[in-house]
Amino acid sequence: MKLYDYAYSSAGYRVRIAMNLKGIPFERSSIHLVKNGGQQHSPTYKAINPQELVPTLEVDGHLIGQSLAVIEYLDETHPTPPLLPNYPLERARVRQLANLIACDIHPINNLSSRHRLKEMGHSDDEIMTKWYAHWITRGFAALEQLVAAAKETGRFCHGDAPTLADICLVPQMANAYRFKIAVEAFPTLVRIDKACRELPAFAAAAPEKQSDAA
Amino acid sequence: MKLYDYAYSSAGYRVRIAMNLKGIPFERSSIHLVKNGGQQHSPTYKAINPQELVPTLEVDGHLIGQSLAVIEYLDETHPTPPLLPNYPLERARVRQLANLIACDIHPINNLSSRHRLKEMGHSDDEIMTKWYAHWITRGFAALEQLVAAAKETGRFCHGDAPTLADICLVPQMANAYRFKIAVEAFPTLVRIDKACRELPAFAAAAPEKQSDAA
Repeated sequence: MKLYDYAYSSAGYRVRIAMNLKGIPFERSSIHLVKNGGQQHSPTYKAINPQELVPTLEVDGHLIGQSLAVIEYLDETHPTPPLLPNYPLERARVRQLANLIACDIHPINNLSSRHRLKEMGHSDDEIMTKWYAHWITRGFAALEQLVAAAKETGRFCHGDAPTLADICLVPQMANAYRFKIAVEAFPTLVRIDKACRELPAFAAAAPEKQSDAA
Repeated sequence: MKLYDYAYSSAGYRVRIAMNLKGIPFERSSIHLVKNGGQQHSPTYKAINPQELVPTLEVDGHLIGQSLAVIEYLDETHPTPPLLPNYPLERARVRQLANLIACDIHPINNLSSRHRLKEMGHSDDEIMTKWYAHWITRGFAALEQLVAAAKETGRFCHGDAPTLADICLVPQMANAYRFKIAVEAFPTLVRIDKACRELPAFAAAAPEKQSDAA
């Protein structure tokens, strides 16, 4: 399998964690999102991913875009260890937590949204303080509430083994740390993130461990 | 089952379509997203959905937020008719198309994002022309490319039966029509949307058919 990816893509980071947890060997093809105006906009890559986004997973000539679609595919084809629990209500809980991050924090703060805000006249500083921090703080506040009070929460977001929810949490938390967003109000998320990063599969997937890191 | 929902929520619209396709009876509880500053912000509803978003599905006292998590749950517990194909690569394709809309168009254009842009000084007109239209047009361009060329595409986004991808497409297309975004450049999406809306399950889920429609 070949993963079109960029070290600092948090959607790519999710797929790297999933691949590592499953122990699936893969080749990485770096698509630098900043260099030369963004390699994701090259005609070659546009043919691979018409959204001009990473990651894309190539499997036997088939191309899969969208990180959650990729991870569900990996979970269906390489079921051990599972990234979703066994029972539908539990699976729904994990997917709810994952989608809270993957729909309602990440894309709103993504490079392309920030780029658009710049085109609409906002400074980098304004984008970071009024937009980026706003969506992480708002999303994490809801997530903390969903996780802190629930009996289903264990060492990780759901029980004592990592799931899709943790796979989404860790890259989002890395963004928060990278851009110095205050996370003290989310002690459960901070604790779970730390527990995840102690696992080799998560540690090896970190942006700074990738060959295309700055 | 009880669905906390609002007629013009496109995430709610997705769940209504899925419920109708499966033939699952459900009660609707209207959470008016505009009246009284937004009923989703009431303490009662915040306890149901800490993100202060609709929809939420209540099943035997359990609460599931995030429309895609809800629909995957419905598909697992009420497998007929299936909303995802049988084979992992095909399921991945459908989830990719669905997530393109559910992650990279809808939340960026959601009421709360538009509200935030207003707080950052933009007029309604600017938000509609420079932001809302931008993300629909950009997302639909990629989606059209993914769907138009693929041999997997049939009467619907994937084959000749509706899937999760169509469930996401129709509410997004409804938004485009409602806000007069040009869709002529996306003939395959226009065709599929029309084919979907001819089905009673889609027709009955339309915003204007709901008791809380304006």
